[in-house]
Amino acid sequence: MAGAGSAARGTGRLRPLTALASPDDPRIDAYRVIKERDLVGRGGRFILEGRTVLDVALSPRNRFAVESLLIAESRADALAPLLAQTPADVPIYTASQPILDGITGFHIHRGLLGVGLRGDMPTAAQVVAGLPAEALVVVALGITNHDNAGGIMRNAAAFGADAALFDFASCDPLYRKAIRVSVGGSLVVPFAREGTAHDLLDLLGANGFELVALSPAGAVELSHLARAPRTAVLLGAEGPGLPADVMARARTVRIAMKGDFDSLNVATTSGITLHALTNFT
Amino acid sequence: MAGAGSAARGTGRLRPLTALASPDDPRIDAYRVIKERDLVGRGGRFILEGRTVLDVALSPRNRFAVESLLIAESRADALAPLLAQTPADVPIYTASQPILDGITGFHIHRGLLGVGLRGDMPTAAQVVAGLPAEALVVVALGITNHDNAGGIMRNAAAFGADAALFDFASCDPLYRKAIRVSVGGSLVVPFAREGTAHDLLDLLGANGFELVALSPAGAVELSHLARAPRTAVLLGAEGPGLPADVMARARTVRIAMKGDFDSLNVATTSGITLHALTNFT
Repeated sequence: MAGAGSAARGTGRLRPLTALASPDDPRIDAYRVIKERDLVGRGGRFILEGRTVLDVALSPRNRFAVESLLIAESRADALAPLLAQTPADVPIYTASQPILDGITGFHIHRGLLGVGLRGDMPTAAQVVAGLPAEALVVVALGITNHDNAGGIMRNAAAFGADAALFDFASCDPLYRKAIRVSVGGSLVVPFAREGTAHDLLDLLGANGFELVALSPAGAVELSHLARAPRTAVLLGAEGPGLPADVMARARTVRIAMKGDFDSLNVATTSGITLHALTNFT
Repeated sequence: MAGAGSAARGTGRLRPLTALASPDDPRIDAYRVIKERDLVGRGGRFILEGRTVLDVALSPRNRFAVESLLIAESRADALAPLLAQTPADVPIYTASQPILDGITGFHIHRGLLGVGLRGDMPTAAQVVAGLPAEALVVVALGITNHDNAGGIMRNAAAFGADAALFDFASCDPLYRKAIRVSVGGSLVVPFAREGTAHDLLDLLGANGFELVALSPAGAVELSHLARAPRTAVLLGAEGPGLPADVMARARTVRIAMKGDFDSLNVATTSGITLHALTNFT
């Protein structure tokens, strides 16, 4: 069936699939040996992985275009409902599990991958210019861990943050693992990643944002914080935390903990803070 | 220097170190090819990894005995303050990085490991019997992911939960990775892991605990929940969540989110909930 169109079986809904007979097929070059740092720089693509992420990617919430899907042959039936949602102009490639693993250089969890296209990413200034008069923005400064970047984007999506800004020292929310940990939040929340912490603080200050810096040494406890109409929540890396010169420019806020173990994961910190500052009840 | 005692250098504080010349030295059998599932069943030991965890392990907060430490030779100077805190009867082994990696079968991050001893673990009934009249307990049901188990223990420690109970379907908070993610919280918060969800609910109910089940379908929003003097927070696995028969026995509570992306990580859920139910301000 190499290169021929087949169809999703057993569903009554036909969706053409393109079966691959070789891991070297040039049509799936974007999936080849997924080295994220390489891929990120190459043609503006990123990797979508797993059912939950693809569900978001194929929904109207996704801000990015999907270029193609690549699935394990054995999963075609189980994934038929998802594949039926896939726009007709998005090719769906299928391959046996060994060919799949050969293409990507690692074992594909649950046999479902996609490639997304960054397109024209907005600048931080464009993201901020697009915000409403009342807005909540999450700002990640020096967050280099992909799990944490993904966790922050998951929480930003869950609590409806209007945007996220990452400084250039932070990792990319579109890294494969960050997207996976975000369960698709990286595709939903408008974000930009650029510049230094102070570049981003300058931008936010000029646009009327109150800067709220989360730190165990913060002056105000979170539950006593009244949210300004425009609020930016600043998060630093675990360990070093936010630099003193960032803290000096912000209202500093702490999450009260038991005295002898004041240690929270930064993604958890974002969740606690966003829950405290939002109200969907 | 094989087998001979040397000493931490450059600190003025002498602490005998035992240098190893071979990965096959029987004195460090406990570290050999750290397969966690094997180790957990073998002699009641568990693995401590990295500086933050060892700091907690060597502090009075740790509820477990430390059997030995194993460090990379190259780290002896940098770790001298930590080693000086190590009780005299706890042997400290040193080895070159290749020998270290040969012992453990994987690369030792930052060159610092320890072995802890479970000793006589309390039963769930003993843990509950030891609680004060006002108490907050975290209950993990079917949490099989080590990151999440560790994250829950980290938050339990940070917010001063009095105990944690894990059903037997959950993973062990003393797995290597769970301890690491907990940044030592697994060593601090009294816990037991046994039985079914209903066994644990029976025990808590008989001891006057209000059962609070976290679920996106919960009847009460978290910020409207008044905490009973004895409260047990029930957490289920992401995806399936808590089973209906557990929900039926509990007061159900939700964390309000934006409607179209109601998805939180379970460790983050524990952090948001414990923050809402505790007050250290």
